[in-house]
Amino acid sequence: MEAGFPEALKRAIRALALLPGLGEKSATRLALYLVSHPERAEELSRALGELPRIRLCRECGNFTEEDLCSLCQDPQRDPSVLCVVEDPAALAVIESAGVFRGRYHVLHGLLSPRDGLGPEELRLPELLSRIKQNGIREVLLGLSPTAAGEATSAYILELLKDYPVRVTRLACGLALGMEVRYADPLTLKRALTYREVLR
Amino acid sequence: MEAGFPEALKRAIRALALLPGLGEKSATRLALYLVSHPERAEELSRALGELPRIRLCRECGNFTEEDLCSLCQDPQRDPSVLCVVEDPAALAVIESAGVFRGRYHVLHGLLSPRDGLGPEELRLPELLSRIKQNGIREVLLGLSPTAAGEATSAYILELLKDYPVRVTRLACGLALGMEVRYADPLTLKRALTYREVLR
Repeated sequence: MEAGFPEALKRAIRALALLPGLGEKSATRLALYLVSHPERAEELSRALGELPRIRLCRECGNFTEEDLCSLCQDPQRDPSVLCVVEDPAALAVIESAGVFRGRYHVLHGLLSPRDGLGPEELRLPELLSRIKQNGIREVLLGLSPTAAGEATSAYILELLKDYPVRVTRLACGLALGMEVRYADPLTLKRALTYREVLR
Repeated sequence: MEAGFPEALKRAIRALALLPGLGEKSATRLALYLVSHPERAEELSRALGELPRIRLCRECGNFTEEDLCSLCQDPQRDPSVLCVVEDPAALAVIESAGVFRGRYHVLHGLLSPRDGLGPEELRLPELLSRIKQNGIREVLLGLSPTAAGEATSAYILELLKDYPVRVTRLACGLALGMEVRYADPLTLKRALTYREVLR
């Protein structure tokens, strides 16, 4: 339905339609909205143009625009407790509960043999080297209580068996099968406060 | 759920969440996708940055990057037949049926007293001046068969009663209550071919 539209509008529709979950109709609707609101188009263009600057924190793997993310730079955070999370979205939800005051370790995935995601695709060597170097006393497994999350937690528990660290996991205030990124802050607060000691 | 995210990512989420139909969760999902696909973020940023260049065709009111839109510049199009449409999206759908070879006139709205849209908010003076100046022999009303579309068609029919032009409308192959912008090309082809003569 692009016939008669100027090229700039067609390009915007095509670029929007490449986003996951947006079809041609939604893309057209959004592009026409942005033509009528050029100040929003400019703001969005500018904001999206900055996204390629984002990279992974050298220490924890969180998203950052600098070498170290804001959490790793924060001297108020306890460096001896590491919360292991699946991805930066899960980190952000846990962080918004406002209870956890340690540091994070972002795996960028969960074990999933079906999708070809083995231990070497996750940031597990980086986790081990942090534990070896930095006097970590507790590893809190903040992974989703899904099949892949449980498998990954079990794998990490086994991996850490010879290290002198406490390993804990989020308490099951979380509904089984639910993903961490969609949990509400109160449930997470409970899960953080009553975290289970695995050994 | 933005805690721990870098500023650039927060800005992108906020700008995306301003789009109609996108909530904070969808905006976060799209922004995280674009962080993982920086080449798409750049392409989309560039495409959206061009949208503020789009303005209205001086002649017909269609979207264009130049003074006249591509359809008004096309010498192959019959300048004596004008198809009146609600907006550029309706124009694009009618155009994609590939039957109509005249020019367009875009109203940018329909009469809607409830929303405060009277005749002076639409591009009706421009329609009259085109009819006076340019030897128009037919005005084809390409408006949706909805209450607002029918009211606008009736208003234009009355407006043109002293002008020596034929007035036609799209044949009712269109389902009643359906908007032109969502019609399929075959239905539109039929509606264009069997357009009704009003007088």
